[in-house]
Amino acid sequence: MTRLIDIAKTAGVSEATVSRVLNGRAGVNETTRRSVLDVARQMGRDVGPAAAGGGPLVGVLVPDLDNQVFTAWAERIEAELFERGASTLVALRARTVERERDILQRFLHCGVEAIIVVSGHHAQERAPLDHYRELTAAGIPLVLVNGVREDLEAAFLSTDDEHAVRSVLTHLQDLGHQRVGLAVGDEHTWPVREKLRVFEQVTSEWGTDPQPVAFTDFSYAGGYEAARDLVGRGATAIVCGSDVMAAGALEGVRSQGLAVPRDVSVVGYDDVFWASLTNPPLTTVRQAVGSIARAAVRTALGGGEDSRRPARTEVVVQPQLIVRGSTAAAPDGAATMEW
Amino acid sequence: MTRLIDIAKTAGVSEATVSRVLNGRAGVNETTRRSVLDVARQMGRDVGPAAAGGGPLVGVLVPDLDNQVFTAWAERIEAELFERGASTLVALRARTVERERDILQRFLHCGVEAIIVVSGHHAQERAPLDHYRELTAAGIPLVLVNGVREDLEAAFLSTDDEHAVRSVLTHLQDLGHQRVGLAVGDEHTWPVREKLRVFEQVTSEWGTDPQPVAFTDFSYAGGYEAARDLVGRGATAIVCGSDVMAAGALEGVRSQGLAVPRDVSVVGYDDVFWASLTNPPLTTVRQAVGSIARAAVRTALGGGEDSRRPARTEVVVQPQLIVRGSTAAAPDGAATMEW
Repeated sequence: MTRLIDIAKTAGVSEATVSRVLNGRAGVNETTRRSVLDVARQMGRDVGPAAAGGGPLVGVLVPDLDNQVFTAWAERIEAELFERGASTLVALRARTVERERDILQRFLHCGVEAIIVVSGHHAQERAPLDHYRELTAAGIPLVLVNGVREDLEAAFLSTDDEHAVRSVLTHLQDLGHQRVGLAVGDEHTWPVREKLRVFEQVTSEWGTDPQPVAFTDFSYAGGYEAARDLVGRGATAIVCGSDVMAAGALEGVRSQGLAVPRDVSVVGYDDVFWASLTNPPLTTVRQAVGSIARAAVRTALGGGEDSRRPARTEVVVQPQLIVRGSTAAAPDGAATMEW
Repeated sequence: MTRLIDIAKTAGVSEATVSRVLNGRAGVNETTRRSVLDVARQMGRDVGPAAAGGGPLVGVLVPDLDNQVFTAWAERIEAELFERGASTLVALRARTVERERDILQRFLHCGVEAIIVVSGHHAQERAPLDHYRELTAAGIPLVLVNGVREDLEAAFLSTDDEHAVRSVLTHLQDLGHQRVGLAVGDEHTWPVREKLRVFEQVTSEWGTDPQPVAFTDFSYAGGYEAARDLVGRGATAIVCGSDVMAAGALEGVRSQGLAVPRDVSVVGYDDVFWASLTNPPLTTVRQAVGSIARAAVRTALGGGEDSRRPARTEVVVQPQLIVRGSTAAAPDGAATMEW
């Protein structure tokens, strides 16, 4: 195989530039790029598709495609990359840090230009970060969505969970609810910790007993179970950590012979496609997936050859409360019940 | 960079075996694999993650993640690959044949072991197939889901649309419907052609005037528009090509001051996660995503070193009619109305 250094000498550019061109990376002007490709081909070097066209390649890692909000992240980020002429490889299911590292290394091996990770291990409390540092040390821009760690030089983009939880609780308080339950998944993850922190802070100002919290998981069954638990503890409104949980909560409330929203109000989180199609349609929090995806892609592709190591940046985007039919005034007498 | 031929000589194996090991492909026994990796490392060759572990890599191409049935395909195929110790790269949005070719070449460049394409250009009538032949010629097993072409040596796996459409029409006939509309997307795609062919064949046996068909697109708006059109042409039941279309059809029927299922029945296709959550819950056809995904992965990973070129195979899997609340008896008098 023709060596990079030989191509570099003949083309009169640096070896690094040849490497960038052959890997289809940005930061090389078009005339140089074409000249390097011509030389490489003349010298018998196999020029792959990354180099030949199709724009830069970006790796996107999401937890799974089961939860539609992760699908929405992958879909929006891919759409933004496509609009900017880049190609996307999506990987999933980095259940362990080791597997996450494997996947990120695979991305590197495929010649990605940048990597965007949604709700990865950066969102886990105390998870090791060395596998991210390997990437930033290699000059790969790293964008981490929904999850913030202090000790890592990457770009962090998150939904403002504090704003979300405050909006939901204000809405429920306006409707007269005084006993509100929170239904969330694993309490060691960043989004759950954030929601819990704000939930406890806001409700502590209500001057009531502590409000009930159920930790199950971010699934339909998790929502069903949490709703039954929270209704049993007197909640007249249930705030769920995802729309899938809220769908399960609708059924969980009904399984107790109660009606939504007459007896119990239910609030989702995400505003996935079908949130407006449920019976009743879900009041929920719309994550700013579109604007965060746009910012993530801008950050990922933004660097030229001289700016491959972004400093640490942190951006928080406000979500929006969407009020539909699953929330209504607290049932009469709820305010005077004792728990 | 150390040449493959030098590693091969030192390790006492063929150059092809060295290539397979360094690209993390199957079909090399574990002792040979380790010995090749050891030699390669001793000779200063950079051994990538594909070779070092993480199992074989498979490329999966789906049209988009907007339509939840494509998400379901990607999710199930990835889950099956994961269970068999393989890693998955997902790519999207091969709108043109050229782009599909780019993506498949990217997969090759990343060292994939096999490629699975769901509803790709193989599902388009008369689309060129040379970019698929490039892969099979390179010995990469190619599995094509939902779409069949006669002139290509690949493994084809499809949902039995004939069975699906027949089941739906029998169900509606049993309920007394005599004017049934079909709502589908682009008529040049394989699934639409199949559904249309069976729809026309079955309804021609009813001894009525030809039944109405609306070609819009596989979206909520497409279903809404098609439903209004078909109701205007006297349909008391609407068979949609996807659940997303059916969700739009529910609203389209209501926009005419009619109720589902009292005045008009609506049937979906796919049985996506939220199909049971709509108001009313959708009667729909459940594609056998799980069993087709399993078969696709078995076919993709099945080959050893000597069986890298599968002959042409074709498997058709029966879907299942799921009856819920969106279908009911035809309204009184519908049978005697004239159109």
